[in-house]
Amino acid sequence: MQEFKPTEHQHVRYNPLKDEWVLVSPHRCLRPWSGQTEAAPEDQPPDPQNPLLPGATRSSGQRNPVYDSTYVFPNDFPALLERVPDPPPSDNPLFRTSSAKGTCRVMCFHPDSTMTIPLMSIDEIMAVINEWTNQLQELGRRYTWVQIFENKGAIMGCSNPHPHCQIWASSYLPNEPRVKERTQKEYYIKFKRPMLGDYMKQELEKKERIVVQNAEWVAVVPYWAIWPYEAMLLPINGRPQRLTDLNDAQKKALADIMKKLCIKYDNLFKCSFPYSMGFHGAPTGPSKAPGDSPHWLLHAIYLPPLLRSATVKKFMVGYEMLAQSQRDLTPEQAAQKLRECDDVHYKNKK
Amino acid sequence: MQEFKPTEHQHVRYNPLKDEWVLVSPHRCLRPWSGQTEAAPEDQPPDPQNPLLPGATRSSGQRNPVYDSTYVFPNDFPALLERVPDPPPSDNPLFRTSSAKGTCRVMCFHPDSTMTIPLMSIDEIMAVINEWTNQLQELGRRYTWVQIFENKGAIMGCSNPHPHCQIWASSYLPNEPRVKERTQKEYYIKFKRPMLGDYMKQELEKKERIVVQNAEWVAVVPYWAIWPYEAMLLPINGRPQRLTDLNDAQKKALADIMKKLCIKYDNLFKCSFPYSMGFHGAPTGPSKAPGDSPHWLLHAIYLPPLLRSATVKKFMVGYEMLAQSQRDLTPEQAAQKLRECDDVHYKNKK
Ligand SMILES: O=P(O)(O)O[C@H]1O[C@H](CO)[C@@H](O)[C@H](O)[C@H]1O
Ligand SMILES: O=P(O)(O)O[C@H]1O[C@H](CO)[C@@H](O)[C@H](O)[C@H]1O
Repeated sequence: MQEFKPTEHQHVRYNPLKDEWVLVSPHRCLRPWSGQTEAAPEDQPPDPQNPLLPGATRSSGQRNPVYDSTYVFPNDFPALLERVPDPPPSDNPLFRTSSAKGTCRVMCFHPDSTMTIPLMSIDEIMAVINEWTNQLQELGRRYTWVQIFENKGAIMGCSNPHPHCQIWASSYLPNEPRVKERTQKEYYIKFKRPMLGDYMKQELEKKERIVVQNAEWVAVVPYWAIWPYEAMLLPINGRPQRLTDLNDAQKKALADIMKKLCIKYDNLFKCSFPYSMGFHGAPTGPSKAPGDSPHWLLHAIYLPPLLRSATVKKFMVGYEMLAQSQRDLTPEQAAQKLRECDDVHYKNKK
Repeated sequence: MQEFKPTEHQHVRYNPLKDEWVLVSPHRCLRPWSGQTEAAPEDQPPDPQNPLLPGATRSSGQRNPVYDSTYVFPNDFPALLERVPDPPPSDNPLFRTSSAKGTCRVMCFHPDSTMTIPLMSIDEIMAVINEWTNQLQELGRRYTWVQIFENKGAIMGCSNPHPHCQIWASSYLPNEPRVKERTQKEYYIKFKRPMLGDYMKQELEKKERIVVQNAEWVAVVPYWAIWPYEAMLLPINGRPQRLTDLNDAQKKALADIMKKLCIKYDNLFKCSFPYSMGFHGAPTGPSKAPGDSPHWLLHAIYLPPLLRSATVKKFMVGYEMLAQSQRDLTPEQAAQKLRECDDVHYKNKK
């Protein structure tokens, strides 16, 4: 039989962070697509009634200040409230309910509704990162987990094109970070080094999956990526465990690499690239202190759904929901395509 | 403070099968929706060129027989092939690749492209179930896992409205059943009874989450459901571990409950209700034999995306992808809404 070629022959890859496998079927890239297509992410004309604008009145009746940088306010329809009664204790192993307290906030990135991260200046993105850090500092004192995430694009359930993210803080450690807490701890006990520190170093050596890099951060398509153009930002120096551990150089370089990655994303299919992105770092809460989680390495995750064009996404459906994630092009092929994209945003050309 | 009411107060619920939690935020049902809507699932006019029709020529050049019941053929763009070279052994814990062999088949349910399960007769659905059993029998001899699944509707990535499902058989045990194998085994060792047998009995007693029921099966919205109208079919008698364990009465009653559940689904928003569905039973393969997995109970799972109407779905995005699944209406509320739907399909009324 032929020699194994990862770009031609199906295989499964292991994600040590999530303790899960992904099926990689590169030969399937040839499959034609005749199914549902999405509306192309379009430049919507700015809506003067947009409730996220400076000075606008929101559905709660509250009025935004005339902000000129970032602006944070409580989500008017929060999934998590701070004050709710606790459910009674349940001892039936099949019907377990537990208490959940929390708070949900919305954070505008910029006063201009037509802005996005790839089009913002480094200083403007720095303001966003500084505010993330403040939010984590404040909410992390009380809450076990503070999830900062951006849903970008209508296809990602984002109902407002104004550049913004959400911050959901909870009294419980959610599933995804709970698993990462376990896997990183197990690795640390075994190897005495943080898993993602080792991973980052090997990615810097192998160079196969790097999209962009600067002095402080590297963006890779993870070896175990499930979304076609998934990416992970990893800090190169100093092993920060949480966003609050970043020094000024790391913050500035984070702004730089976020912008660079998002420019490549937008250039790939010449559209405002939709994604959900967010940060994962060590858990927080009253019992936590800086430096207490050496098994953790802070990282950002980008999960974009597009597969072939601005209008054809990867459907994570039957097999993926019931059995296992499956991808067509390999992470190395995805990284190369992104690497080859221009560093100048298509809207700023000529 | 007030007394805890599960229909009013947020809480988390535990899924013992997946060892995961879901955030339930019933107060959020009030949230208005102004974001992306989907094309309503419409009755497409039958396409005379449809490659799934009896007698049609498929893209592979192969011609379908003039079948009059079910028809199974190899997927022309399979994610899994039977003969591929093995990847070399990898001992780096961060870059693990493993071999994956398999086969993918497509199975037409009916010769008529306008048919769907809720509109088919019990005998026609019985033919589908019998063919599923044959397929599992044959593929299960060689393969560790045989995933039977139906992606229904364009919103679920299904590119052809002709009633059909897929069967992907693999040499590896995929993530989802791997976790269920572990959790059910742990429960069985502890309680000496199958987890889902205990669960089914308690659901029959509590009656809060039952959608429909017959002598052999019960359809519930699971206590830990993540999709708004998720459902699970559980066998009431005899503890079948795999589809191949079902007797004739169980098969006939399965056809009956599938039809009844899908009629309620279609009646909920007066549309052909999209979903991904599939079966989970004990793993297969050369070393397996009937009755060898008493910790398993065969079950079917329905994962429908719609939330509020034929055009507004639940987006599983930022928080869900990065932290934890979240739902608005409670499983009990969803079960009640489905229960209250008519038992006669809206297309067959008067
Ligand atoms: O084979 P199909 O129906 O074209 O493909 C569909 O189902 C598959 C299995 O769930 C998915 O991997 C694909 O993303 C989806 O488009
Ligand atoms: O709060 P939003 O942006 O309206 O809501 C969006 O993001 C949330 C968090 O990922 C999801 O729970 C919702 O399904 C989605 O529509």
